[in-house]
Amino acid sequence: MQNKRILLSSRPSGRLDDTNFELRTEALPALADGKARVRVVYVSLDPAMRGWVSSATNSYLPPVPLGDTMRSLGIGIVTQSCCEGLAAGDWVTGFTGWTEYLDVDEGQLTIVPSTVPMEAYMGVFGLAGATAYHGLVKVGKPKAGETLCVTGAAGSVGSLVGQIGKALGMRVIGIAGTQEKCDWLVKDLGFDAALNYKTDDLDAGLQAFAPDGIDVHFENVGGRPFAAALRNMKAFGRIVMCGFISVYNGDKTEEVPDMTAVVRRRLTVKGFVMTDHFETYPEIFKALGDLLQRGQLKYRLDVVDDLENAPAALNKLFDGSNKGKLVVKVSGPEAARAM
Amino acid sequence: MQNKRILLSSRPSGRLDDTNFELRTEALPALADGKARVRVVYVSLDPAMRGWVSSATNSYLPPVPLGDTMRSLGIGIVTQSCCEGLAAGDWVTGFTGWTEYLDVDEGQLTIVPSTVPMEAYMGVFGLAGATAYHGLVKVGKPKAGETLCVTGAAGSVGSLVGQIGKALGMRVIGIAGTQEKCDWLVKDLGFDAALNYKTDDLDAGLQAFAPDGIDVHFENVGGRPFAAALRNMKAFGRIVMCGFISVYNGDKTEEVPDMTAVVRRRLTVKGFVMTDHFETYPEIFKALGDLLQRGQLKYRLDVVDDLENAPAALNKLFDGSNKGKLVVKVSGPEAARAM
Repeated sequence: MQNKRILLSSRPSGRLDDTNFELRTEALPALADGKARVRVVYVSLDPAMRGWVSSATNSYLPPVPLGDTMRSLGIGIVTQSCCEGLAAGDWVTGFTGWTEYLDVDEGQLTIVPSTVPMEAYMGVFGLAGATAYHGLVKVGKPKAGETLCVTGAAGSVGSLVGQIGKALGMRVIGIAGTQEKCDWLVKDLGFDAALNYKTDDLDAGLQAFAPDGIDVHFENVGGRPFAAALRNMKAFGRIVMCGFISVYNGDKTEEVPDMTAVVRRRLTVKGFVMTDHFETYPEIFKALGDLLQRGQLKYRLDVVDDLENAPAALNKLFDGSNKGKLVVKVSGPEAARAM
Repeated sequence: MQNKRILLSSRPSGRLDDTNFELRTEALPALADGKARVRVVYVSLDPAMRGWVSSATNSYLPPVPLGDTMRSLGIGIVTQSCCEGLAAGDWVTGFTGWTEYLDVDEGQLTIVPSTVPMEAYMGVFGLAGATAYHGLVKVGKPKAGETLCVTGAAGSVGSLVGQIGKALGMRVIGIAGTQEKCDWLVKDLGFDAALNYKTDDLDAGLQAFAPDGIDVHFENVGGRPFAAALRNMKAFGRIVMCGFISVYNGDKTEEVPDMTAVVRRRLTVKGFVMTDHFETYPEIFKALGDLLQRGQLKYRLDVVDDLENAPAALNKLFDGSNKGKLVVKVSGPEAARAM
């Protein structure tokens, strides 16, 4: 039996390209005792992966070693088991990496119920959902009636942040990069307003929507949208720092944020990374499940076929061309079931 | 009887100059019933004053109206009283403005004991002391054994922050702009180390002093020192944002801080302005008085003579040429007593 996986072969400077990765096809060994074999169905493409391939040791996870399978979250199905806790047919999620198959120890991945579509684990019950919920609720401490602004609003995290904000009774404005995304936010997801940072005057738009200022700002992007949000914060506002996708490729931001606003407006700015909070996932996924059941949470996946397209697809996150949560379909669940 | 005062006559763009202010000499009217007349002894020159003279309405205090006496903190002595609560000889402090005399209502200024030198009210028991104590203790939440970094370390606030940190059992490094200031910090004030941002490699110096990173950073300056501190924060560190003196004149900072560190290191960055917390001053001044009595707090004043030199002296704060808390001596206390 053959397995395909993608290794990190060199560290990128700037944009990722094909030379940074290597597709390797090799025979799978017999399954070792105490292990289970997982057929990966989806892998998740996340902005944080740009940090994992750089040599920086100051990230929250160590860099992926050169020659190792590229790290990623994913979901799959156990096809064969030689360990107690896992049975063929179990759905498992966690750090699968960019591979068709992986052999795991018990506890290495988390078993999840197969009562919701597998896509929901990518769109809602994964890192994106946990990040959105924890960031907004635990870090941002929102109150009903407050005004929420979110950048990268049509992204996997931002789109959930805005919807959770609405469910909590907030007024929500999103900032995104295309008219299609803005329309989706307002018409489909129930955001109160959306601004296109490529064509709209952000200051005018934020002042019109929030003349008294933004109470909670959720930052995914950095650069010009972040600078505009900083200028429009209410005194004693909170800024949740989730990510800076505009600068992860080493691009210079086109506008320097005026950090004096942090003093003048007495802001609290708090960064977090969700891998610190694995213990809170069950509570978070319970809350997200309730919202999903009540119809207060919608998601869309941008599905790329075939593992070998993963490296090129990752760049879609940084040019903003993905529509919804970006995933790679490694195999059909049917395929996995048939094995 | 003549009074001299300085009015704000135009709003500066960039550096303050003589054309922004007007010295006016005029006869004092007879003291009105219910008022007390105060002879000002010292006025305090503070970085925040740069904001008060700009037209920006997003500062924490409204702009000084054109034609009004320039706003400043100060201390003086009551020379004549037609109100119950104030008696000739009382020492009073608060917003005196740039004037030799002012007539006040009861409660407009705060009566302070004359048991410590009047200079201590400028150097320790004033806005600078309150800012240093509140910022470090209440916002920074320091613990003994933690590493503290402070920029503008030889300034009125920074020099107290470092000494309070030492008194709390922290390891303290200061960043300042001359060798004389660095020597003063280490030899006289007991800082563990000091870096000269004009000549030292800040990253090398911070890494050598704090190989595991900075726990609490107290920011007074912005620009290059802030960028270096951000690069050297420990995970879950706290940054107290007190001021950005490097940018108050509209100068472009020479280095853009890498705000992605706030996410990667899960930092909390919190701005505050001390005028929000007047109610805590008694508690703070009690604590500062204890430190002063135990010899754990030293201060130095940079005294400029004559009110008419106040506008030019204010620029010393922004080019860093002041040594210690900058004040203007408006009159000798002897003079006031003789009136």
